[in-house]
Amino acid sequence: MADQYAQLREDKRPTEIPVIRWEEPPEGPVLVLLDQTRLPAEEVELVCTDAPALVEAIRSLAVRGAPLLGIAGAYGVALAAVRGFDVEEAARALEGARPTAVNLSVGVHKASSAYRTALTKTGDPAAAATAALAAARTLHQEDAEASARMAAHGLTLLDELLPGGGHRILTHCNTGSLVSGGEGTALAVALAAHRAGQLRRLWVDETRPLLQGARLTAYEAARHGMAYTLLTDNAAGSLFAAGEVDAVLIGADRIAADGSVANKVGSYPLAVLARYHHVPFIVVAPLTTVDAQTPDGASIEVEQRPGFEVTEVRAPQVPVAGAGDGIPVAPLGTQAYNPAFDVTPPELVTAIVTEEGAVSPVTAGALAELCARSGRATIG
Amino acid sequence: MADQYAQLREDKRPTEIPVIRWEEPPEGPVLVLLDQTRLPAEEVELVCTDAPALVEAIRSLAVRGAPLLGIAGAYGVALAAVRGFDVEEAARALEGARPTAVNLSVGVHKASSAYRTALTKTGDPAAAATAALAAARTLHQEDAEASARMAAHGLTLLDELLPGGGHRILTHCNTGSLVSGGEGTALAVALAAHRAGQLRRLWVDETRPLLQGARLTAYEAARHGMAYTLLTDNAAGSLFAAGEVDAVLIGADRIAADGSVANKVGSYPLAVLARYHHVPFIVVAPLTTVDAQTPDGASIEVEQRPGFEVTEVRAPQVPVAGAGDGIPVAPLGTQAYNPAFDVTPPELVTAIVTEEGAVSPVTAGALAELCARSGRATIG
Repeated sequence: MADQYAQLREDKRPTEIPVIRWEEPPEGPVLVLLDQTRLPAEEVELVCTDAPALVEAIRSLAVRGAPLLGIAGAYGVALAAVRGFDVEEAARALEGARPTAVNLSVGVHKASSAYRTALTKTGDPAAAATAALAAARTLHQEDAEASARMAAHGLTLLDELLPGGGHRILTHCNTGSLVSGGEGTALAVALAAHRAGQLRRLWVDETRPLLQGARLTAYEAARHGMAYTLLTDNAAGSLFAAGEVDAVLIGADRIAADGSVANKVGSYPLAVLARYHHVPFIVVAPLTTVDAQTPDGASIEVEQRPGFEVTEVRAPQVPVAGAGDGIPVAPLGTQAYNPAFDVTPPELVTAIVTEEGAVSPVTAGALAELCARSGRATIG
Repeated sequence: MADQYAQLREDKRPTEIPVIRWEEPPEGPVLVLLDQTRLPAEEVELVCTDAPALVEAIRSLAVRGAPLLGIAGAYGVALAAVRGFDVEEAARALEGARPTAVNLSVGVHKASSAYRTALTKTGDPAAAATAALAAARTLHQEDAEASARMAAHGLTLLDELLPGGGHRILTHCNTGSLVSGGEGTALAVALAAHRAGQLRRLWVDETRPLLQGARLTAYEAARHGMAYTLLTDNAAGSLFAAGEVDAVLIGADRIAADGSVANKVGSYPLAVLARYHHVPFIVVAPLTTVDAQTPDGASIEVEQRPGFEVTEVRAPQVPVAGAGDGIPVAPLGTQAYNPAFDVTPPELVTAIVTEEGAVSPVTAGALAELCARSGRATIG
């Protein structure tokens, strides 16, 4: 009995973070999501029985992060199909939940076109629903596999660059399971180092203004039992100066053809600090992040976000809604400069790690070659 | 009547920030303080009629900032003397209000020794009280004059370094009237540039974790009608990359004999960014900040502050009291690295501006010479 109890406890506290899963209880299939707006205070799951429930979860940021949104969108289409709802209507609603999220739209299209193709071929809605679910599962699986391959390539690179082991890694924003079908990008590499007994310390930038580091990366690190320490973004300089950082690992929102990396604001200052202190600065991202249509860093349009994210503070459970919903920390009428991300030029990036291997030094030619090897077109 | 009303409004909203003042209404002398814990939401004055009220104001951080604490302590001794309380007891209580604040202790000693000397000489407590008040006023005046001289020297330096005018200045933490008997250090220089029509933009780092930039510098800039914009500390990199910063101006907590500058955490990353982008990095501080007993940066002990300042957020009106008083933003049990300041080596500092002039390039010899010229001993 004692053993069974222990087993139960272990089952209930898996190391793996249950971000998204498809379940088929007797009352019908459901999509189960970890409600990210409640983190890190509470681990609460949302059970979606139809597409409108998932649309609401996406809108409220309960589920977020580019690759994860794509997977959720695909499962949402499958859910509508399996439960016999109008699939085209569900697809439109899901796509519109966050119109600027390209991955969401891509995921929705993958599942709905699998549905349509099967329906045309077989005339059987049940078979078409099975095809939509298979497409969602494939996307989920592919993303998980890409994470695993990035983690393996990243760990190999770390071992080459830092042969002594016992890595002290600084990371920024959230790049783990919470944004991915697998274990993420940069954080997946740190997790691989942890599992290999090679992670001495994970330094977690809090990542103002939305605190994804404090809220989400610290949560993931704690879940995995990694040795982590949180810091304000501006305290990273002291760590570099004290020789406490062996490598910086970050993700990417977009990589231009020349290797310029757009990522969460605060990445570029880390790249400059890393260069000044001769510390490797490593970007981990799937090849889908490389945008051949964008020739260089100057061509990347940087999203400017509303100033109230800076001029007000709010509790983590309160999603960022509008101005005035938080507690003001600056005088009323204060104007804020609030770019969502910054751009790091290729000369400051030691390596870009993808699921197909690492590029180092980072050049347009090397990136194009890697994309070509993976079967993706690099010239738009 | 309309004119009178306008005059009244103007009187009530002076550009000068009424941080501390001695008043003598018919019911007896008082020390009036701006309650800094209520900023930026409200401008509320605290009226102290005796030393215990001032002790409470110091403890609650209603009055803060090294030079200002010294001035407040001196006035507190004068208040006890003028109102006929036990001066030695008041001095002990004031000194103990924040035991690590050296300036507070120095200010208290100046006024109480003036009191004792006059009492010994004249035997008249009223004459001794007048002497204590005169000592407090002298300290206040000297600090204001030092601010004005730093501002003038700083403006001259800016004009030399950036002959085009229209300066875009980035600053960190709070270095203005709220910490000084005058208009402060770095912010006094920016204010002088503003008054000379030479300030195009003041970029205000929010300064995590305690947000002195958002709360206090933004308040001062708004009061003075300066063109200012608030940003998260990690967004400064984007401004440098876009060529939007002409100079960085910061204060100093301590300057070692070799010119290493200890200042609020986040100063060093700005120095590295400034160097990488060939932007002048200027430190503004009175010569009392130069500590000849500390030979170099490595000898400066950096205060580590409690982690809850990072792992919790709190409203500005709530003074930082203890762990658990704020809203947690990180998982419970999260460890935080929270140094109060960092150290910038002299080779990254373009100039140190003092009330006696600027030192550039920053070397041990040049600093020692400036201190000697001002009559201060530089070798401990």
